[in-house]
Amino acid sequence: MAQEDGRQVKATGGASALNPHLHDDGLALFTDLYELTMLQAYFEEAMHETAVFTLFVRRLPKGRNFLLACGLDTLLGQLEYLQFSADDRAYLASLGSFSDRFLRWLEDFRFNGSVSAVPEGTPVFENEPLLEVVAPLPEAQWIETLVMNQIHLQTVLASKAVRVVQAARGRPVVDFGARRTHGIDAALKGARAFHIAGVASTSNVLAGRRYGIPVSGTMAHSYIQAHDNETAAFEAFAHLYPDTVLLVDTYDTLDGVDRVIAMARHQRAAFKVRAVRLDSGDLGALAQEARRRLDAANLQQVEIFVSGGLSEQAIAQLVAAGAPIDGFGVGTSMGVASDAPDLDIAYKLAEYAGEGRLKLSTGKPILPGRKQVFRQQHEGVFSGDVIGCLGEDLPGRPLLVPVMEQGRRLPGHVRDLDTMRNHAREQIAHLPSPIRNIDPADPPYPVRVSPRLRQYQETVTEQVRLRHHAVEPPKV
Amino acid sequence: MAQEDGRQVKATGGASALNPHLHDDGLALFTDLYELTMLQAYFEEAMHETAVFTLFVRRLPKGRNFLLACGLDTLLGQLEYLQFSADDRAYLASLGSFSDRFLRWLEDFRFNGSVSAVPEGTPVFENEPLLEVVAPLPEAQWIETLVMNQIHLQTVLASKAVRVVQAARGRPVVDFGARRTHGIDAALKGARAFHIAGVASTSNVLAGRRYGIPVSGTMAHSYIQAHDNETAAFEAFAHLYPDTVLLVDTYDTLDGVDRVIAMARHQRAAFKVRAVRLDSGDLGALAQEARRRLDAANLQQVEIFVSGGLSEQAIAQLVAAGAPIDGFGVGTSMGVASDAPDLDIAYKLAEYAGEGRLKLSTGKPILPGRKQVFRQQHEGVFSGDVIGCLGEDLPGRPLLVPVMEQGRRLPGHVRDLDTMRNHAREQIAHLPSPIRNIDPADPPYPVRVSPRLRQYQETVTEQVRLRHHAVEPPKV
Repeated sequence: MAQEDGRQVKATGGASALNPHLHDDGLALFTDLYELTMLQAYFEEAMHETAVFTLFVRRLPKGRNFLLACGLDTLLGQLEYLQFSADDRAYLASLGSFSDRFLRWLEDFRFNGSVSAVPEGTPVFENEPLLEVVAPLPEAQWIETLVMNQIHLQTVLASKAVRVVQAARGRPVVDFGARRTHGIDAALKGARAFHIAGVASTSNVLAGRRYGIPVSGTMAHSYIQAHDNETAAFEAFAHLYPDTVLLVDTYDTLDGVDRVIAMARHQRAAFKVRAVRLDSGDLGALAQEARRRLDAANLQQVEIFVSGGLSEQAIAQLVAAGAPIDGFGVGTSMGVASDAPDLDIAYKLAEYAGEGRLKLSTGKPILPGRKQVFRQQHEGVFSGDVIGCLGEDLPGRPLLVPVMEQGRRLPGHVRDLDTMRNHAREQIAHLPSPIRNIDPADPPYPVRVSPRLRQYQETVTEQVRLRHHAVEPPKV
Repeated sequence: MAQEDGRQVKATGGASALNPHLHDDGLALFTDLYELTMLQAYFEEAMHETAVFTLFVRRLPKGRNFLLACGLDTLLGQLEYLQFSADDRAYLASLGSFSDRFLRWLEDFRFNGSVSAVPEGTPVFENEPLLEVVAPLPEAQWIETLVMNQIHLQTVLASKAVRVVQAARGRPVVDFGARRTHGIDAALKGARAFHIAGVASTSNVLAGRRYGIPVSGTMAHSYIQAHDNETAAFEAFAHLYPDTVLLVDTYDTLDGVDRVIAMARHQRAAFKVRAVRLDSGDLGALAQEARRRLDAANLQQVEIFVSGGLSEQAIAQLVAAGAPIDGFGVGTSMGVASDAPDLDIAYKLAEYAGEGRLKLSTGKPILPGRKQVFRQQHEGVFSGDVIGCLGEDLPGRPLLVPVMEQGRRLPGHVRDLDTMRNHAREQIAHLPSPIRNIDPADPPYPVRVSPRLRQYQETVTEQVRLRHHAVEPPKV
């Protein structure tokens, strides 16, 4: 089913002619208002020293043993283009809170900072930096909303999709999510994230064009309904698309299968239908009986493709029960990551003007300074991670790599989707199997903080306390 | 707190100069591949008769007593602009499944159909048409993915937001969601949906510009952290923005409140700070003690604004406990509608070439033909809905109104956000109070199908069966 209905084609010319990031132009104002009021304050206070912001997920959501980092190249492409247009500045002027001096300063304002990050398709865990931004404070502050939104989106969706792909155990999964993802951006970038996570193709044509993802599709109930009867619809569609997938459940699934068999008998050698699709009812039992009837009619080559409200758990059950299913179409549950649609992601100031920074708010600790994650491996299996200070010499493979300098993506930065997809597959294969599994892992994957970083956190905490209490409020 | 930090301004010039729909240009390919393969089949089979498609939600998700219809004008604006560019057609040609004849036909292909719909901001229930599309079959088929995606997005988010607003019982709610909504489109259109549902303002500057929604914001922990101490940060920020909101929980919430009080003593008449924001810890207890200290310092005018992982349940508890809170900033739980991120929405062929259509798939019934919803009222309270045939004369107010003809929005169609917002508030006020409540209502709001529509459904079912079985498959 890798080419499940013949309409699955790798786009080349169309997609490469298109810069996917141009569609995200005009995003300078895609920021929370407070970022801009703080920017003006930094401008007035001349606070332009270098800041380090770290993006990380505080806790894994219930039902996730790991996350799959995703969305980096999308973000970097946006950072390269980000600037305030004259219209943007006119709108800000209309708000009445920004000075002409500040608005003139914004005219040449760009993101010229550096970014180091975990490559897309890398499994990550709680508190591990997904990326670190090193830039003058105003630049690093400005991009907060965009960084969080874009990495969150694709990481949420890739982390869900990898579970669906795992559950399908090698059978192709097709993304049917576009109709219920949260908007257009999520549908397009979701298709990208799904593909990196191992999903074979997408039904979303614009995503196919924009990202060069294989597109595929079958037929809808409406096509069958609009014809006088199912047989007429099957014949017309297969006449135009001989190697198509026929949807058999509009009126009665097994009756539909019988009609496909009758068509095969009638058409003999001209019959090229690749598969039938089941979209409702007891999919396991129906697939069994459909397979039996197809095989009895000597149609072993006709595959069975199923869809209809599938989650990774439903797929795992079908696979475990030995249902003769050759591929899965998965829509809503993957498209909105319905069991864990959000991550406790944070973008936090960790250093300013060369000094470690943190906050002391309840339950929301920050690891100060620039960091690195070291992933250790034992006999081909990842055995644990250590979050350390950048430059620390610890065993294991460092995960964070430089990807952007002076606001430009570095030449070595991976931008090719196939490379990311291969990287993801290879990295996931190295996870301990309970972590890769869709059931909750106990114990979870071990992540430690290095003694040096822990010590640094304590030192900075003490410094922050001292500096803070150097100015005591009077007792009320 | 309607103007919670002085930065909340109604955008006028900037927003009105901007057509929000232009940003969604290039969406002809935002469709599932099968829509286009079916389109080519309709083209080859000359199936251009009029089709009726109905958009509805099959079941309300757990935790929803009603939905708030939203996203219509966004969609209609897109339908007016939708067309295949030369690049779109070149991409389709590259897929190898489309004939030159068909691709030439697409050149002039537009949506020229009619739409009737429930106005935005109207409460709706299961199986009630949100909209009906009447158009030549290919046109109505083409737009399926876009119609579903866009109405689903804003209806999901508005239906969540209205619960948050209800829970806040008149205290303003500010949208802080942009950083964790699913992508840029969801953040922008989400802000629109939230505002229609009663949310006071958004932190999202681009949404403010695009839709003319009031924008507001306070300050972030990073601003405090980047300063030597909290007092220095408070003084600098309040110097630039005298009527600001100061974030007090970076190091210790009540210590932060004491610093604000000290600043007030020091600045005397120059002190204009409007509010403090609490973002972590036991918000109810902290708000109580903060209020006590502020009042003791004769700072009754300084309001208390809270945020940090708030859901409608958390807000309802704070309100019920009498916490002295003047406004709520709500992010993720509203931004992704985390408890119900998707709806069982469907866009189904209900009529073709003048004949009612449906399918017989398990658990997925369709009400055939064109329909109307009649909402009955008793002593100022909505008492129940009847879904009937279009043209039926039933008691109650008809909900579906014509909004587009020949692919153009009708002059009377409401496009003004304030009007929609007022409509929503007024309509929600007429719901029975158990339905308006955030707890599950038992019994649910009564929705019936009229005897005539039920009869018609049975007649069409019988016709479909007869037509279908006129061509019997041979027994295998």
